[in-house]
This record gives sequence, C-alpha cells and structure tokens, in this order.
Amino acid sequence: MTDAANLPTFDDVLAAAQRQRGLVRITPVLSHAEIDAEAGARIFVKAECLQVTGSFKMRGATNRLAQISDQQRAAGVVAFSSGNHAQGVARAARLFGMPAVIVMPSDAPQVKIDGVKADGGEVVLYDRNAESREEISNRLAAKRGAIVVPSYDDKDIIAGQGTAGLEFARQMQDAGETLDGLICCTGGGGLITGIALAFERLSPETRIWTAEPEAHDDWARSLEAGEIVANAPGTRSICDAILTPEPGKLTFAIGKRLLAGGLRISDGDARHAMRMAARHLKIVSEPGGAAALAAALRSLPAELKGKRVGVLVTGGNVDMADFQKVLSSTD
Amino acid sequence: MTDAANLPTFDDVLAAAQRQRGLVRITPVLSHAEIDAEAGARIFVKAECLQVTGSFKMRGATNRLAQISDQQRAAGVVAFSSGNHAQGVARAARLFGMPAVIVMPSDAPQVKIDGVKADGGEVVLYDRNAESREEISNRLAAKRGAIVVPSYDDKDIIAGQGTAGLEFARQMQDAGETLDGLICCTGGGGLITGIALAFERLSPETRIWTAEPEAHDDWARSLEAGEIVANAPGTRSICDAILTPEPGKLTFAIGKRLLAGGLRISDGDARHAMRMAARHLKIVSEPGGAAALAAALRSLPAELKGKRVGVLVTGGNVDMADFQKVLSSTD
Repeated sequence: MTDAANLPTFDDVLAAAQRQRGLVRITPVLSHAEIDAEAGARIFVKAECLQVTGSFKMRGATNRLAQISDQQRAAGVVAFSSGNHAQGVARAARLFGMPAVIVMPSDAPQVKIDGVKADGGEVVLYDRNAESREEISNRLAAKRGAIVVPSYDDKDIIAGQGTAGLEFARQMQDAGETLDGLICCTGGGGLITGIALAFERLSPETRIWTAEPEAHDDWARSLEAGEIVANAPGTRSICDAILTPEPGKLTFAIGKRLLAGGLRISDGDARHAMRMAARHLKIVSEPGGAAALAAALRSLPAELKGKRVGVLVTGGNVDMADFQKVLSSTD
Repeated sequence: MTDAANLPTFDDVLAAAQRQRGLVRITPVLSHAEIDAEAGARIFVKAECLQVTGSFKMRGATNRLAQISDQQRAAGVVAFSSGNHAQGVARAARLFGMPAVIVMPSDAPQVKIDGVKADGGEVVLYDRNAESREEISNRLAAKRGAIVVPSYDDKDIIAGQGTAGLEFARQMQDAGETLDGLICCTGGGGLITGIALAFERLSPETRIWTAEPEAHDDWARSLEAGEIVANAPGTRSICDAILTPEPGKLTFAIGKRLLAGGLRISDGDARHAMRMAARHLKIVSEPGGAAALAAALRSLPAELKGKRVGVLVTGGNVDMADFQKVLSSTD
C-alpha cells in the first residue's frame, strides 16, 4: 500500500490549498522573547489552534471531503477520532452538505464532543479499552454506504494538512527568515509529513523533528529503527490528541525519508508549554497541541540551540476546567 | 489644537502601514458559531491581542517613533500608560535604538510592568489617586530632553493604530464580506478613530460603535451630547486599559464625525467575553480588550441584529492569576 501512487506530492499540497480557499484560515506566526530565552533559540510558533474548529485537522478534512463526488455525498462520511479530526470532518461535511457520523472514545474532552455536535455530526461513543473504533466505523460505513475518512494514513489527508507547512514556509520567506529546524507534534503523522513535503520544496535546509509524549514515542523509536515500531499498549499521557498506536504506513514512508528525528516530552512539559503559550503568545492550546512547543522549551536538540526553529501549536480544544488546572500548575 | 492640520487622514494611515512593515503582525480575523448564536449576529473578531507586545498599541508607537529624527533619538522618549501603550513604546524604542522611560500606575497589572522592563524600558511608578502622570512625564522629559509620546491624542498615534482598521477592512474584502457594524473598545479613542478613518474610505457603509465600562461611559455620553463630557472621578472597572478621563480633543473631532454611538458593558460582561474568547476563539484577552466582544454579546444595538459585525479584541495582557479567576467565574 505504500507504492508511489498512494503517496502525496508537493503538487498535491498545492492542489489542497486551492480546495481550501475561503474554508480555512491563514493562521499567524507568533513569537516572544521569553520563549526564545528559555529555549535558547529563536522560536517561531504557527498557531494552528486558531484554525477553524480549533485545530489543523480542518485542512485535511476539507481536502478529502472536497473530492467526494456528488453521487456519494448523500450517504455521507464516517470518521473515528479522539476529537480534532472529528471536528474537522464534521465541519467539512456540513460545508459540503453531507451527513457525518463520528466514532469517539467515551473519555474524549467534552469540548470536542460538543464541537462535533454543534456542526450537526452524529456522535457514536465507544470504550477505548474494550472496543475497536475501526470495526465500529467500518460497520457503520458499510450499513450506510458512507465513506470512511481516515485521520492520517491517506494521501488527501496528508496533502491537506500539508498546507499548514506551505503557509508557514511562505510566511517565513516573507519575513526574510529561514528556519533551521521545525518541530511538530506527531500522532499518526499526517500533519508533520504533509509539512515535510511542503518544506522539502520551499525550505529544504529545514530539519524537521517529531514531538511526542515520552511514554508514547513510537515515531522517535521508529525513526531510530528505520521501521515502524508500536507503543506498548496502555501507555498514558495528557496529550489525548496524539496517542496513536504507531506511525501510519504512508506517513512513515514519507517521514523516514524527510524527518530528522524524534523528541520526547513529559506531561509536565506539555503543561508548561500551555502556560507559556497563554502568558506570552495569548493563545489557548491543548496538551497534545502544545507538545512541540514543550519540546522546543525543554528538549531542544543541541544542533538547534541558537538557531531559528519553527514550532506548530496544533490545537486548542481543551475543556476550560482542565485549562484552568494547567494554568495553576507549576511543573 | 483641533484644526485640520493636526488631524490624521486616510493617507496618514497608509503611510503608517508602510512604516510598520515587518515590525507589526497581521492579526487574524476569527469567528465561531456559538458567539454568533449568542450575539444574534455574525461576529468577526480581529484578534489584536495576538499583536506584538500583546496589544494594538505597538502600531501607533511604531508609527510615532519611526518619525523621530536621528538627532533626537539619543535623548529617547517618555510615555505614561496603564500598560499597553507602555509596552508598545518600550518595544518600538528598543527596535529604533532609543531609551524609554515609562510612567505607570503602581496598580498596573504585573504582566504589563514586566513587559516594559523586558524591552529595556525604565519604569517609574506613580500613585493613580495622588499624583499627575502628565506632570511626572513632562518633568522627566524636560530633564532629559526626551520626547513625550502621547497614548492617543496625537496625529501619528491615531494614524498608526488605524492600520488595524486598514487590515481589517481588507481582510473582510478578501473574504467577500461587508461589515454592517464595527465595535471597538474605547479609552482615549486613538484606535477607534484611526479605524474609522480607514473604514470611511474602504468600507463607508460600516457603522462604528464605541464600547466602554458602564460607569466610565464618557464616549457614549460625549457622542450623545455632541461635545466632550468627562467621567465622574473615581469610577471603577476591571477594564484597566480603557479608563481614560474623557475623549481626546483630536480623537473626538474625528469620532464626532464618524462614529454611530456608544455601547456600555458591565465587569461581568467583560469576564463573560473573556471566557467566550478563550473557549471558542482560543485567545487570551484582558478585560478592557474584551469590552467590544462583551458589547456584541450582551449590548448589541437592535440595528445590528442579524447583521455582520466586526469586533476588535485589542489586548491580552492579563495576569495569569486574574485570568484563571475569570475562567472560573460565571457571570
């Protein structure tokens, strides 16, 4: 399944940007001297938490759903997701006039469940520890004749997320800056590999790093091993958005070629990054969405010290009660 | 002092935008269905809390300081401000290589005092109830041969803040939308009148409204009276950024011609707007900075119901402990 025809290219990212016009936001690149001082590098934060639906996932969902034919639209789409892909698919489905069923874990943040429902998505909850979301999704899709929209291991999803990289590279060009490094939180890898395709063409000198919870470091270990390695079952982290079991086949095929390596963060690092982002950048981020900033602040590779480093803050869908707890924490 | 030569024009706003290139950010326009539903209108939020130094004040400060001659730069600048203008001037002074002394009330939020110091500004604290910040500033400026940079009643400051309006009007044009109304929090009136100059040319159909604390409604009453009316001394509000005693002479001369009227909000309305902005737009705002959103949500004029309304969220410089309290409040 990883033959070249299934892998997206830079041209697919460009085509995705066309399909997204008017449907996704150009998100700003933010920075602050306190963040630079703590990281020991110049940090440029692309704030995708300000994207429509509160995360970058709207980009891939829009690109995928835009390509569903008129005949297929009536039966709609099915997606499974802990919440951000869910909201992206629900919103894109509404914009394109399709029904959407979203299979979500019963412990997903309420703000994410509410976001899906607000866009008219039908939510089906499942038990993360006892049921298979893939099986539930496939059964629902078969019954309805609907299309399953994968959250990362899909050519159109990867190309769609990649427009965040297209924008970021162009914003840095406009600012007259070249990024030496870029760090992106990584679950299945759809975003980081889409970004890598954009940067390969527009900013090839930029070395790109994954950021993951330390107990959930499948990308870091897979990149080290040169092959896909899974996480141990049952690992825990507050970074709910990026807890996928292992790299995708398509995403790893791209990542193996284009990524520099993997960085690891603790839950405390994620909370610290959320506090720094709120205090200095004036943005609300969720734990998984702040993982790359956490890595920049606390696990920056020696080769990036003193250099220019791009960081994606990818989502802000956190329950306000949890956000308050993070703001009052001190780790 | 309000003869035409002192009043900025649309061309002054265009010239300010040129001087600001590369020094200020293009801030995004955000929206969310929950905010629209509660306001009963389509609300477009320009997030100036994401501006450099955490508020729009960087725009005017940059435009003013860019025009100080090389000979004058060594003696530097003096400004008085509760905090956002202070930070804008301190940053612009650093960028242009000038010393800056900032006269701030002793009860200013710590985050604002820290922001000034981080940019190398020298902070002089005064007692808001017992001392005159104008006198202190003038004395300091005379002693040093420094230039006093006013926070609003100045042609270059108004034109500089106006670039927020230039950007906003163009962003709405790009989105294919025309604003029926626009609401902006108003202290001295530098921002709203600069915006009004931009909209007069680019979007003349947009009716522009001030937003103020209900006990500090000098603009609303002045617009009603057709002449400058001051607030009663000693009025209180959590909106520290916009508690000026009365409209400026220059700003009122523009405002009288171009503004539709004034809206009033309570402290609870401001807190509510801060919560809505965090939850749905993923931005951190300060009380005064959220006043226009508060007015849109709770005091929207009948003529704007069902219409397209632009809102400026102008600053995000709030102490994190206070921000947490607001997030847990329910008014």
